Amino acid sequence: MSERAKTGLPTTKAGRLRQLLAGPSPVRAVGSHDGLTAKLVQQAGFDAVWASSFEISASHGLPDASLVTMTQYLDAAAAMDAVTDIPVIADCDTGFGGPMNMAYAVQRYARIGIAAMCVEDKLFPKINSFADTDQDLLPAEEFALKIKAGREALAGGDMVLVARTEALIAGRDMEEALDRGRTYAAAGADAVLVHSKSRRPDEVLEFAARWDLDVPLVAVPTTYGTVSEQELYQAGFRLVIYANQGLRAAVRAVGETLRELNAAGTAHSVDGRIAPMSEVFALQGMPSSYHTKP
Amino acid sequence: MSERAKTGLPTTKAGRLRQLLAGPSPVRAVGSHDGLTAKLVQQAGFDAVWASSFEISASHGLPDASLVTMTQYLDAAAAMDAVTDIPVIADCDTGFGGPMNMAYAVQRYARIGIAAMCVEDKLFPKINSFADTDQDLLPAEEFALKIKAGREALAGGDMVLVARTEALIAGRDMEEALDRGRTYAAAGADAVLVHSKSRRPDEVLEFAARWDLDVPLVAVPTTYGTVSEQELYQAGFRLVIYANQGLRAAVRAVGETLRELNAAGTAHSVDGRIAPMSEVFALQGMPSSYHTKP
Amino acid sequence: MSERAKTGLPTTKAGRLRQLLAGPSPVRAVGSHDGLTAKLVQQAGFDAVWASSFEISASHGLPDASLVTMTQYLDAAAAMDAVTDIPVIADCDTGFGGPMNMAYAVQRYARIGIAAMCVEDKLFPKINSFADTDQDLLPAEEFALKIKAGREALAGGDMVLVARTEALIAGRDMEEALDRGRTYAAAGADAVLVHSKSRRPDEVLEFAARWDLDVPLVAVPTTYGTVSEQELYQAGFRLVIYANQGLRAAVRAVGETLRELNAAGTAHSVDGRIAPMSEVFALQGMPSSYHTKP
Amino acid sequence: MSERAKTGLPTTKAGRLRQLLAGPSPVRAVGSHDGLTAKLVQQAGFDAVWASSFEISASHGLPDASLVTMTQYLDAAAAMDAVTDIPVIADCDTGFGGPMNMAYAVQRYARIGIAAMCVEDKLFPKINSFADTDQDLLPAEEFALKIKAGREALAGGDMVLVARTEALIAGRDMEEALDRGRTYAAAGADAVLVHSKSRRPDEVLEFAARWDLDVPLVAVPTTYGTVSEQELYQAGFRLVIYANQGLRAAVRAVGETLRELNAAGTAHSVDGRIAPMSEVFALQGMPSSYHTKP
Repeated sequence: MSERAKTGLPTTKAGRLRQLLAGPSPVRAVGSHDGLTAKLVQQAGFDAVWASSFEISASHGLPDASLVTMTQYLDAAAAMDAVTDIPVIADCDTGFGGPMNMAYAVQRYARIGIAAMCVEDKLFPKINSFADTDQDLLPAEEFALKIKAGREALAGGDMVLVARTEALIAGRDMEEALDRGRTYAAAGADAVLVHSKSRRPDEVLEFAARWDLDVPLVAVPTTYGTVSEQELYQAGFRLVIYANQGLRAAVRAVGETLRELNAAGTAHSVDGRIAPMSEVFALQGMPSSYHTKP
Repeated sequence: MSERAKTGLPTTKAGRLRQLLAGPSPVRAVGSHDGLTAKLVQQAGFDAVWASSFEISASHGLPDASLVTMTQYLDAAAAMDAVTDIPVIADCDTGFGGPMNMAYAVQRYARIGIAAMCVEDKLFPKINSFADTDQDLLPAEEFALKIKAGREALAGGDMVLVARTEALIAGRDMEEALDRGRTYAAAGADAVLVHSKSRRPDEVLEFAARWDLDVPLVAVPTTYGTVSEQELYQAGFRLVIYANQGLRAAVRAVGETLRELNAAGTAHSVDGRIAPMSEVFALQGMPSSYHTKP
Repeated sequence: MSERAKTGLPTTKAGRLRQLLAGPSPVRAVGSHDGLTAKLVQQAGFDAVWASSFEISASHGLPDASLVTMTQYLDAAAAMDAVTDIPVIADCDTGFGGPMNMAYAVQRYARIGIAAMCVEDKLFPKINSFADTDQDLLPAEEFALKIKAGREALAGGDMVLVARTEALIAGRDMEEALDRGRTYAAAGADAVLVHSKSRRPDEVLEFAARWDLDVPLVAVPTTYGTVSEQELYQAGFRLVIYANQGLRAAVRAVGETLRELNAAGTAHSVDGRIAPMSEVFALQGMPSSYHTKP
Repeated sequence: MSERAKTGLPTTKAGRLRQLLAGPSPVRAVGSHDGLTAKLVQQAGFDAVWASSFEISASHGLPDASLVTMTQYLDAAAAMDAVTDIPVIADCDTGFGGPMNMAYAVQRYARIGIAAMCVEDKLFPKINSFADTDQDLLPAEEFALKIKAGREALAGGDMVLVARTEALIAGRDMEEALDRGRTYAAAGADAVLVHSKSRRPDEVLEFAARWDLDVPLVAVPTTYGTVSEQELYQAGFRLVIYANQGLRAAVRAVGETLRELNAAGTAHSVDGRIAPMSEVFALQGMPSSYHTKP
């Protein structure tokens, strides 16, 4: 730590995330739902962990609909943060209620060293942005109160506050999306995430082209996955979040493996599909003298 | 439920597990660490979920060494049980301490409807059975006190108590393994799990051949994965646990997918490897009117 | 249990609460926030524990304003229930969100054996009913959807659903309070709690006099504490909740004791004010051979 | 914070506790089990909160016998720390297992800003020191390994490690108590707590008189409550812990109040014994515009 202090490198994960956001290439985060998947994100070479509310609720086997509580999201983020060296960006849905809930959550997350919190302008309880249903938004001024409350709760702390607008998801026009972004930036957001469920990146690229503030933008290319990080970066996005590909890879692989195991009736049948015990031991930090290779 | 009552079918998951154990084919359980993976186990057609302490500690990114607490294991088992219809068998390591801890844990697990608890005769804190290190065992009589305490704590409840001996893992001879099994059965165990890290099933088959009690046996074919369920069943095993193949499939797939994503720099690159959002939505029980297909 | 089955006595705490509510005298519940205070409620001879959201949030040192999460309330209720024999009635604020949150909470609470849940028709996030601020109510029809969702989630289970109207707290008239009560009863509530912050019992007595349904009423005499249980019972209330007197007794006594300790500078100084260790040992269920009397 | 940095005052609670321990008067801590009681400790003017394992287990209604898990103790300490400005000293029993458990716990507690951890040389699972039963101790060298593991896990962090010897509780002689204290100090303990269940302070005073290291001593005057803080300070103790008087005051007062309430049958009957709602509102930090005075 003293070394860091001498060289001027930030000593907190939030500080490092701020530094990355000001850097010469896109910051890349990947969705995660527990300590293990967070470690896999770090191991694959990404810059940050996205503590995804979709992944976390799915890991509980529950709909992404504000059923999982702040306590559980916080525990999940803490587990991810404890076993990784890269910053954790916590997906905090609507901020768990009103401005008072937001302020309280900010204190709880900041206290355990989470680098960033992202909150969105949907109504509580929310429904996942890709669900085939209408979405209601909070009036922009009311959502701005949450951002303001979060900023004040930080009391000068360096945690990054990301404001996410669901305007385009909710079918509002580009003008409103931009206005909301500006309002949230004015209220104290450190970055603005513009979400889109378009199959093409046109929406978010237009948003970026028309963005006129010196506040970094964030993209989540789930439906418009053909766009590259570099294109997004050149368009003005500083943070690109691959929100849920890890969990979806696990669902695919676990499902296939278990079906094969079920059909074959011997453990041996799936050997070719699974990581050796020693690889899991290494990931979970078993003291190296204990590693083995069954 | 009233239908079940009429037809005489057991109304608790523990009752159903007891019925399965007395049935004409092996009961097959698969390791799981959260609600989602438990659902995948059920979906693949297995009979029961093994709430694996190895998987659960790995999911936290922590060594399988008694760092994860009873409270956390219980929460994980509850999450699995809440979203599945099949019985959950909770891997409870050494019972979390002495006889008093065991009694307390039995009450906590029984209270939330967990079908079975499995405890083993290693010392607390334990180290995973496949770790490359020596293992110490509790004297058989002391471990029997834990089983007895658990049985008394059940107070007539139908939760299944599985006693697991690590005698062969710890390098003790077959005679001791059998003696321990008999001692635990006499103390009130409903089933006996004999663990082995042999590359071949010979050890557990010999154990079964010499087993002379009317108490069902349990096998965990991790290292001796060439043996089939049917062979184990014919040898006398009533419950076969595939303890960790699901998690290992996830580690392999998530690792590969994220490395590819990292190299490619577009979400699109991994589309072929991952489940669609709609499949995850279905697994997490999103109300069907909300399903979508991005 | 088999004895109970033979004699027709209810085997669940919910069943016993239902029986008490149909009995010849008022059911008396007392507010509690942890296992210890729940035990004190039982020890003093009351019929039920009120798992008070005011007490639980205060015990965290937090405002009673929907900051404490469902997970934490559930854990607190579970701790109370685990160490007492009397039914626990869980104060569940606004049901933690919309109908889906309510349905989910009902399943979680029912699953661990909580006898009853009480939900109120304020907006989420709520503020304590005695706070000096305006209160907004959910439209009655929307709140009825929560009750309906809870009833369906019970799927025939015997947990008692109490609907609480804050109409009088929010300054609405008696007509609306009665209408809301009727609407909630029609939606499936097993009992209706009419809350009041009047200094006299006139409001709740008028409500009871005009109540025309065969659905039991519940009173919480906090501000109108001069009324007796018997008067309330004769007016038609079946359940009387002393919501927070225990916690307030603790705050008074702990404050005074610590101030004296601080002034005196010796432990001895407060001996006359505090329970002996042996009394706490007995409450916490230390095995009797271990009791001591320092 | 920047002010503190300028003036050289420590910015962490651990730093402040270290400063207090080097100060000209005894540091006085009081036992607590939740956020509310921690606030009462601070309000009464004490220097630190003792997150007592006896109080916390009692608050769950459970014996003080290693049934409450590290996760639960950590949550309780976090709740206390979050709502107070004074340092929290966490009573961590035996360190929750072996050296690996200790190292892990140190990281978890340090991470959330707990100022100090205290661990004792009894065996896991432990029984309360005042229970009428024999106590077994871990060999001094083995316990020293826990202290060493904790120190290494801190990696230069400023959390205070207190080693507690139960030698006198377990009936060992003064020589062994002193030897154990020295061994633990050599292993990295920042302070040594010598526990005693003598009715008089002679034991601990003799220990202090013979203590020859520049490592601060800690006393817990529960049974020998006639001694004053000043006497203990002059004898060499730097930290005096009133471990459980708050909880015992609550048990006495809540018990008496509820018995009176039960007998009287009106809330009014106990008005003289309990704090007004407004006092609880203030303690729980209800926004001041919301305060009321029922």
